[in-house]
Amino acid sequence: MWYYIISMKKDNIQPLKGFQDFLPNQEVAREKVLETIRAVFKTYGFLPLATPALEYKELLTGKYGTPADKLLYSFRDQGGRDVAMRYDLTVPLSRVVAQYTNDLPRPFKRYQIAPVWRADRPQKGRYREFTQCDIDVVGTTSLLADAEVIGCINSTLLALGIKDVVIRVNNRKFLDGLMKNAGISDQKSLNAIRILDKLEKIGEKGVREELALSGIGTKQREALFELLGQGFEDSKDFVTKFEGIDGAGELALLIEILLDMGIKNYQVDLTLARGLDYYTGSIFEFVLPDARQFGSVAGGGRYDNLIGQLNGEQIPAVGCSIGIDRLIEALQELELLKYDLVSDVLVCNLDEKLIPKYLKIVSDLREAGIVTDFYYESAKLDKQLKYADKKNINFAVIIGSNEDQADEAAVKDLGTGKQEKVKLKDLVLKLKMK
Amino acid sequence: MWYYIISMKKDNIQPLKGFQDFLPNQEVAREKVLETIRAVFKTYGFLPLATPALEYKELLTGKYGTPADKLLYSFRDQGGRDVAMRYDLTVPLSRVVAQYTNDLPRPFKRYQIAPVWRADRPQKGRYREFTQCDIDVVGTTSLLADAEVIGCINSTLLALGIKDVVIRVNNRKFLDGLMKNAGISDQKSLNAIRILDKLEKIGEKGVREELALSGIGTKQREALFELLGQGFEDSKDFVTKFEGIDGAGELALLIEILLDMGIKNYQVDLTLARGLDYYTGSIFEFVLPDARQFGSVAGGGRYDNLIGQLNGEQIPAVGCSIGIDRLIEALQELELLKYDLVSDVLVCNLDEKLIPKYLKIVSDLREAGIVTDFYYESAKLDKQLKYADKKNINFAVIIGSNEDQADEAAVKDLGTGKQEKVKLKDLVLKLKMK
Repeated sequence: MWYYIISMKKDNIQPLKGFQDFLPNQEVAREKVLETIRAVFKTYGFLPLATPALEYKELLTGKYGTPADKLLYSFRDQGGRDVAMRYDLTVPLSRVVAQYTNDLPRPFKRYQIAPVWRADRPQKGRYREFTQCDIDVVGTTSLLADAEVIGCINSTLLALGIKDVVIRVNNRKFLDGLMKNAGISDQKSLNAIRILDKLEKIGEKGVREELALSGIGTKQREALFELLGQGFEDSKDFVTKFEGIDGAGELALLIEILLDMGIKNYQVDLTLARGLDYYTGSIFEFVLPDARQFGSVAGGGRYDNLIGQLNGEQIPAVGCSIGIDRLIEALQELELLKYDLVSDVLVCNLDEKLIPKYLKIVSDLREAGIVTDFYYESAKLDKQLKYADKKNINFAVIIGSNEDQADEAAVKDLGTGKQEKVKLKDLVLKLKMK
Repeated sequence: MWYYIISMKKDNIQPLKGFQDFLPNQEVAREKVLETIRAVFKTYGFLPLATPALEYKELLTGKYGTPADKLLYSFRDQGGRDVAMRYDLTVPLSRVVAQYTNDLPRPFKRYQIAPVWRADRPQKGRYREFTQCDIDVVGTTSLLADAEVIGCINSTLLALGIKDVVIRVNNRKFLDGLMKNAGISDQKSLNAIRILDKLEKIGEKGVREELALSGIGTKQREALFELLGQGFEDSKDFVTKFEGIDGAGELALLIEILLDMGIKNYQVDLTLARGLDYYTGSIFEFVLPDARQFGSVAGGGRYDNLIGQLNGEQIPAVGCSIGIDRLIEALQELELLKYDLVSDVLVCNLDEKLIPKYLKIVSDLREAGIVTDFYYESAKLDKQLKYADKKNINFAVIIGSNEDQADEAAVKDLGTGKQEKVKLKDLVLKLKMK
């Protein structure tokens, strides 16, 4: 009984398993990353959208495939409605497009940055709550949109300071075409694609075994690996080699557009499948060769049927999602994250009688846009400087009775330890110039 | 049966009742407001914190008072844990402080901007999901912290362009003191304070009636209204008039600090109570006289016992929360919201053969930080300009075969309709200067 109470107390002040707090040093870095991402998304002409955290459960089920349905956080609300927490940002976007079809510009280019929730088994780099940064182009079948989405995510990763980005590209139609060409029936095709997706993880032998187990015969397996084994030089060569296979021309054209955009860091990967069921054309993901252990930091593709499932009108779409938590871990690994808390000034509090003067200075500094802290208690200077240190503050403004009488302040550079006297009337300007 | 299916279809593509989508024009305005808020919070030395959307249900119950407990969105998760969606940002902050007591600077000044969820009855301006912008100072009993919180929110509202802001100030200790002084027993005090809070809504007569109904005698009611009816000139006069009543000195000192900070737009309101149970000292809220129908757009106070409930260590705290959804409605009413979608350029697509050239121009413009859209289909110019209009784009870059041969572009100002020819090599610079 006692044990129970103690363990309750402990749980009480911890976040749920698989959920994270972001303390200021982490959150400052995260906000900077998000600012960069938002800025690039905007430059590409994407507009912001926000949707609720909760949706009708019915909306979210049957869109991602059966395993995903089990990971939905769902419950019955006070009004007896079955509701679920957002699993991704794509299905809510599809709902918005289905609902406001006539109010939105078409093509509709939107970005959304928001947390999503999945009751997954937590593991390193995988959380039950994580933030997705999505861009999507809705309302066009043009491959220029696929290329623009890829280009935008590529620019975003480069803007974050990442030097080496590899874009893995494939096409779902082409995968289906490959399976068909290898003599694998439609019923078995989707499963075969899922097995093929594991090539990097379990190797060719593993894939062959799993294909066999799933009832795909020797002849088909041989045919499939013969197709996959063909090398190709460029998009023209690709089309020649895979002539007659559905989606080959589409994939080749996408590559040509990427080249026209000056994007050369792509790899055509015929085994890339991407998990979600709803993709119908181009699929792609972004990996960082210098931080390969984090897997893909972004991924997406074309999904031309999802919105039609909601309102009956066939509306094509293509999009990509950055998993910000994994990306941030990768940026940390690559030493590209800045953890500065960047507080500029601490106005010290040495004499209660001077508080009105301190408050005036604090107001003036803040009005000039200088990040300013004021120490509340008239404590020993040492204690106040320790606080400044813990908060990474750059300058201390120190006014005791001597400085007060001379109408000046001692300004201490907390990095170098150097200290200088500054007339009060010059203080704002002086600190502004630092 | 058919009716059922049709109504399902309709529900399917709508957000849940009390939840909102923010389409781009709204979301652009929201993001700008949030940027301003974040900037002012930072200037005051507040640091960002993020906490999960879900917490142990146990953490959130019993903190806000009984009526609020019923409004929690709670459920049992896949692991059998009772969890609840965040009801506010104060209790999660308290958990973080209780958990990381030794890792955080003290005083700990944090801001958090995040949605919260309450299964409230939806009505005009009240939603089941809404975003709170909170600042809190944890770890000091100094009234300078109370004043700083008030000053920061005041600066924020002014920074948003609001001219007239009124800060209503009171003190929970003083309210208790008033009740005691009027002869109202401790058991009936909290309820009497809640009734008094309705003065503006139901008038003095209504309050007197409700007090009587709750068992407070005529003598006590008379004594209370006599105390409340006393006018006072300034903080000194206030202290004289209410001498001997708990909290009177504290309230007077807060006002003096506000004056030292140059803040004159406060009103001492002895009937202000604020709903939540956990306040222990200063309480305050912000109203906009020019948009009074929106009620208070921000409110907060001191809560010195809440964190102690979690880890046993008494840690004092004071904070304030802006309800951004209500604030935005007020800003809209005051015509202070900017809905510009601010897209700079549309590169038109007039000739498929020129797509590589268009793509190069698009890349160059985006690299220069110019918000650029590219029209995917080689459609009629009219159709493309209609799209530009719907997206509020400022300039169209038009290159047909004539312009191509002359290595130039026609740049059309979509506001004035004027058009000029620009050499391609000067295009980026020219558009950058616009």
